[in-house]
This record gives sequence, structure tokens and C-alpha cells, in this order.
Amino acid sequence: MSLLVVGSIAFDSIETPRGAVEEALGGSATFFSVSASFFTKPRLVGVVGEDFPDRHKKLFVDRGIDTTGLATAPGKTFRWKGRYHQDMNTRDTLEVHLNVFETFEPTLPPAFQGSTHIFLANSSPVIQAKVLDQISKARLVMADTMDLWIETQHDELMALLPRIDGLLLNDSEARLLTGEENMVRAGRAVRQLGPKFVIIKKGEHGAMLFSEDGVFVVPAYPTPDVVDPTGAGDCFAGGILGYLDSDDSPPPGRLRRAMAFGTVVSSLVVEDFGLRRLQRTNRNEIDERLEQYRAMLSF
Amino acid sequence: MSLLVVGSIAFDSIETPRGAVEEALGGSATFFSVSASFFTKPRLVGVVGEDFPDRHKKLFVDRGIDTTGLATAPGKTFRWKGRYHQDMNTRDTLEVHLNVFETFEPTLPPAFQGSTHIFLANSSPVIQAKVLDQISKARLVMADTMDLWIETQHDELMALLPRIDGLLLNDSEARLLTGEENMVRAGRAVRQLGPKFVIIKKGEHGAMLFSEDGVFVVPAYPTPDVVDPTGAGDCFAGGILGYLDSDDSPPPGRLRRAMAFGTVVSSLVVEDFGLRRLQRTNRNEIDERLEQYRAMLSF
Repeated sequence: MSLLVVGSIAFDSIETPRGAVEEALGGSATFFSVSASFFTKPRLVGVVGEDFPDRHKKLFVDRGIDTTGLATAPGKTFRWKGRYHQDMNTRDTLEVHLNVFETFEPTLPPAFQGSTHIFLANSSPVIQAKVLDQISKARLVMADTMDLWIETQHDELMALLPRIDGLLLNDSEARLLTGEENMVRAGRAVRQLGPKFVIIKKGEHGAMLFSEDGVFVVPAYPTPDVVDPTGAGDCFAGGILGYLDSDDSPPPGRLRRAMAFGTVVSSLVVEDFGLRRLQRTNRNEIDERLEQYRAMLSF
Repeated sequence: MSLLVVGSIAFDSIETPRGAVEEALGGSATFFSVSASFFTKPRLVGVVGEDFPDRHKKLFVDRGIDTTGLATAPGKTFRWKGRYHQDMNTRDTLEVHLNVFETFEPTLPPAFQGSTHIFLANSSPVIQAKVLDQISKARLVMADTMDLWIETQHDELMALLPRIDGLLLNDSEARLLTGEENMVRAGRAVRQLGPKFVIIKKGEHGAMLFSEDGVFVVPAYPTPDVVDPTGAGDCFAGGILGYLDSDDSPPPGRLRRAMAFGTVVSSLVVEDFGLRRLQRTNRNEIDERLEQYRAMLSF
């Protein structure tokens, strides 16, 4: 099997109540692929500027990530600057410079077009559809989206939803998309728009899965050490698809187990700035935390 | 074993996005004891006014609740009026008339003083301490509290905490009491104040348990039919202590199982106004939903 992610690669400057960091390697495709790399060898498609240092490319390669689809364009790499509030659940975007990402038109290397698992990280549904057009025989396509696209590219998003297997969005986005306040109703309503399954992310409160098997609730792993929440959602997705790409067992339990792995990786990434915590972990620690998490939920 | 609850009995007038109800039977001791009555025969201590109808007393008796400690005082029963916001998670209190509850000094009937399980429903820590003074040999005392007492009777609350086994409070109250934003840190910090275990309620996001065995996370049962959230927290507590009072198995798993039962009863009560949904359920339905809940959490 094979896992492809198409998304952003960025430099994040972040302030949280626990400290600050300047121009740390980030972006949705970065967090996703590093998270997935604990389970499989993801294929990364994205664009960086001429200022992107070799040591970051080496980080990807060292984690077994295939960078054949990593393009370098004239100009600077995408930059984002944000500040988290005291509760760590809300943040203000202080600066966004899309730079080379603004005109990014993903072209998949021929070898990537037959990938079995695809993650369309958060970007315009037009771009996401263009990626899908290049895919020949995916087993499972999951897409992320955000309030901006729900509001400004509604029709394009509606056209995309029946073409994907899974949609990932957060609780306020699910409300915006469906008009339903109740999350169970909202999740069911999103499924009516086309995706076979829907995952609603609730930040520190975990996530919910809606599929033909009903509703599955996934509390967050309760870590006392939240330093920087950036990337948690993409690491959640990376754990899910990374695990799915590595496990060929029958479907019913697979997606739930995948969500548990996604939960564990996202609980790790928030324990330090950027990718630092993931650079200090390994599959062993992930498996151990998964067992703690399982015990924590059993009664 | 035997379960005692001391708390309020009220008439609730409630508006929610799903409808409205006038002067429905409510109050913390009411919701608690009706919830607990699915597991054991609770003893109720509270006060009502001369306007309290016999049919409400009959409702308690029909559910096996011992009303020996239900006092009738000159005047009117406690009344509360509130309106829930569109999201059902927040509400405005429109009117509070404490009436006979204002001067309530609970006196336990002699037969109740040896109760093994005690729930001190939300009231001033001074009143809660006076109840404790009358208890001779409880196995487990759990207390509820609220922001008002944390702010206005802080010292009295601090004096109470080492005398109880478990404290129940919601997430914003835990933040207020400890100054910790992170719920894992807040839960641990509350335990340092005296209680052997702490349960932090997070509304539609479930609850967390902190005990000597570590952290246990309890997502809410995801019901699509939230009609009226009033009483959910007290039904959660009633399910916990009702179940504990009925189960004499070894401790480690008991409290977790009890919280799962509390979660199920609170997911039922919110599906209609006041006590209506609980009046249409039975232990069978509770057990069935518990199994659905268990399946929903397993991976």
C-alpha cells in the first residue's frame, strides 16, 4: 500500500502561554507526513521556496518520507505567525504570507498517481479536486477543509464531497456546513453530502466518527503538558491514514484503531513546539501510550 | 448499603431551542435521587413548601425513594427559571426564588445517619459540613460545588475538601479553584486540596476522573436528541453513587463502571424536559445503552 499527502509546508512563528518559537518547520503536509511516518513511508507533495534549508529536506528523508513530489519554486516559503490564548484552544493569526504556496498547482509524479491512500490536506476544494483528477485507483481518499472554503467556495466543496471517502473538519466547521448545533446531527448531515465517513474534531475534547457503523467517540488523550497545539489536527490525520496504510485487516475495527493511533500522535505533538516532540519519540512510545489510552477508556 | 442525598427540590421553568416547560419538578436532590433509583433505594433529605403537590411526593415513593427526610416548611417551594442558548451548553438564569430553601438547615432522620454512601448536592459548604457532622460511618462521601461557593466561601470549602472522598465540579469551576487552564493539571491540583478523587464535568464533552489510579476519561454518550440539559450533572452523580451503592465488587473497576452508568442516565435525562425521559425508561434500557456506549468506545 502507499500513502500520499498533498498540502502546505510552512515556517510557523508561534507564541503560546508556554513560550515562543520563530520559523519552525510546519504546515499541514509536514505534520501529516511526519506523523504518518511512524506507521508507513508517506509520499509528500508540496512546494517550498528557495529559502528552504537542506536540513529540513533531510528531516523528511530521515523519517522515510518520499520527497520526489517536493517542488522548489522561485520565492519564499509559506510563513504563518500566530498567538494562542491562555486556554490553548483558541488562537489569533497575526501574519500569513502564502508566498510560493499562493500559486501552488500540485502535479503528482507519475509514480504517486497510483497511491492507495490519499490525504488532501486543507486547501481550496478546487485544488483538492485537481489532485483527485490525477489519482487513478485510490482505496481511500480523506480530505480536510476549513470555514474559509465552506463560506467562499461552497459549490466547489459540495462537488468534491461525493468524490471522497472521508471528510475531516472541526466542530464549528460542521455547524457552519450543516446548520446543526448538535454534533451527532451535524455529523450525520455531513455524511448526507457525500463522504462515506466523517470525522469531527473537537480539539482538547477529542473527535467523533460517523460511518455506516454508527457513531464512535474518541476522547483526547489527556496530557498535562500542552505546550503548542499547532499541527495536532494534521498529526491526528497522519496517524489515522498512516495506520490505515499499514494495516490490511478487515474494515470494521481498522478505522477506530486508526483514530486511536491518530489521537496518540496528536497528544504527543502538542507537548513541545513544532515537530520537536515527534523528533524525540518512536513507535514504541506510541504503542505504549496507545495501551495507556485503551486502559483509560475501559470500564 | 444505603445512599443518602441532601439537596434542593425545585420547580424549574425552562426555555430551550426545543421548547419550554413551566414549573417542572426539578432540583439537584430530585434529579440525583430519581437517577439513583434505577440502581438502589435512595434516601432523600430536602425541603419543599406548602405548595408542593402530593403527586410529586408520590413520584418519589413510586420510584422507591425514601422520603422520610423530606420536610415541608411554611412558604413556597424553591423556583428557578432559565433559558438555554442555541448551543444548549450555556444558559441564562432569568429568575431564582429560593423560598423555603433559603433557610434550609438539613436535619437527618436518625435512621439516615448511618448511611454508607452520601451525596452532598450543590449548596453552601457550611450546610454541607453540617450534614457531614450528622453522619456516623459513611463509606464514601461525594460533594458537588459551584463557582459561587469557590468565590464567596473559599475558606469554608477548603475546610470541607479534606473531609470528603470525592468532589464533583465542572471545568470552569476547576479552573477557578486551581488557576490551572489544563484540565489534567487542574484535576490533580484539586486532589491536592483533600478529596481522594475528583470528577471534572465537561458538559457535552463528558467528564474526567482523577484518583490514585490516575486519569480516566469519560466521553459523553452522543445523543442526537438534546431537548433540555437541566439536571444532567445531578443525574450523572445519581448514576455514579446509585451504582456504587448497589455494587460491592473490588474498587478499581467500580468507580469507572459507575461513571459509565452515570453517563448513560445523564444522556437519557436530556432527551426530554425535566424528568419526563427518566419516567419513560427502565434499568433494561439503561443497561442496553451502556453496552452501546462500551462498543462505541472500544477499538
